[in-house]
Amino acid sequence: MNMKVRVMSDILKANDLLARDIENLLREKSIVSWNIMGSPGAGKTAVLERLIPMLPRDVRVAVIEGDLATSNDAERIAKTGVQSAQINTNGACHLDAAMVRSALDSLDLDGLSLLFIENVGNLVCPSSFQLGERGRIIVTSVTEGDDKPEKYPSMFKTADLVILNKMDLQSSTNFNMAYFKRGMEGTNPEAEVIAVSSTKGDGFDQLLNWIVKRLY
Amino acid sequence: MNMKVRVMSDILKANDLLARDIENLLREKSIVSWNIMGSPGAGKTAVLERLIPMLPRDVRVAVIEGDLATSNDAERIAKTGVQSAQINTNGACHLDAAMVRSALDSLDLDGLSLLFIENVGNLVCPSSFQLGERGRIIVTSVTEGDDKPEKYPSMFKTADLVILNKMDLQSSTNFNMAYFKRGMEGTNPEAEVIAVSSTKGDGFDQLLNWIVKRLY
Repeated sequence: MNMKVRVMSDILKANDLLARDIENLLREKSIVSWNIMGSPGAGKTAVLERLIPMLPRDVRVAVIEGDLATSNDAERIAKTGVQSAQINTNGACHLDAAMVRSALDSLDLDGLSLLFIENVGNLVCPSSFQLGERGRIIVTSVTEGDDKPEKYPSMFKTADLVILNKMDLQSSTNFNMAYFKRGMEGTNPEAEVIAVSSTKGDGFDQLLNWIVKRLY
Repeated sequence: MNMKVRVMSDILKANDLLARDIENLLREKSIVSWNIMGSPGAGKTAVLERLIPMLPRDVRVAVIEGDLATSNDAERIAKTGVQSAQINTNGACHLDAAMVRSALDSLDLDGLSLLFIENVGNLVCPSSFQLGERGRIIVTSVTEGDDKPEKYPSMFKTADLVILNKMDLQSSTNFNMAYFKRGMEGTNPEAEVIAVSSTKGDGFDQLLNWIVKRLY
């Protein structure tokens, strides 16, 4: 192994160890956590803004927001009335387990049922870093085009659920649903795909059902 | 410096040396090169597909396409009748100078005036890697939202030109042009911004003019 590969491998190993600690902590507390990933502007925060108010009252939710800069997203989430914590990565292209571990310290975990960890907007780097999550959700959008699963396979391969957002704009684009689904079949046939519009609300009943079925 | 920082610093130094060689080679041959960066699906290839046929006949053009996987984009560019070369990064989140150097070997550089290097779709990682380019162009789109300059400052800081694409969809989004322009002012007041629609053609006369004015 050359130096770069060896250092990356050491970094990933250290990250995975810490991720396992987080996973154990969350399991002990019966908290289900989802690592939400996607391109810049795919609508990750917008999906959460619409979904969170639909959740049953007795489901306590917290959100960790990852961004290079600004606290815009944590402020948007705070308006839904749930706990939120902002991580600024200061240039790093993904969250890592240490960042999540330290954000967890700023949240009240008692009685929490559901934790969303919104990763940095990036369709490449976040896929290599375990965060102790129960599973992974990719938000992609029709305006990004129907070829994303085949062009960014390392990311789409790791998803449990793909939320296809901005369906209200589909008729204004050349997005081909059959082509997109073939790309998903070829890349990750196990992942579920739910098509939604975070501005109009279409598809959110199905998304809510998917999330609620997977609570402890 | 810790090990990770030291290795990254060595990698960047080696990259910059090779980038300088590329820059010298292109200058000798009077080839102007632009590093085109942006989110997945911002429309980088679509902008080139519309722009290239508008260029004067005597401007010889080549395009290097960078992607994690597939040769979709090089095939799209080949249809415009210009030379194209595809780089697959096999997981890497950005192009580097060595990849560009090897792609240049597959192109006929004699008589070439203009080289577009389309980077991997990513609004973070490509900014750190010089490719020997004359300058940098970011393609962003109204569907990604008006907050991208402030949320991805490391990228927007390095741009000479920002192409704001998908203007035909603006009325279907909550994109606020004044907010976007304030974000650009705060991040990179020197960069020019040209608003376009790659599907309808709006703004391409201005873009063509910007490119042609900067030829040797």
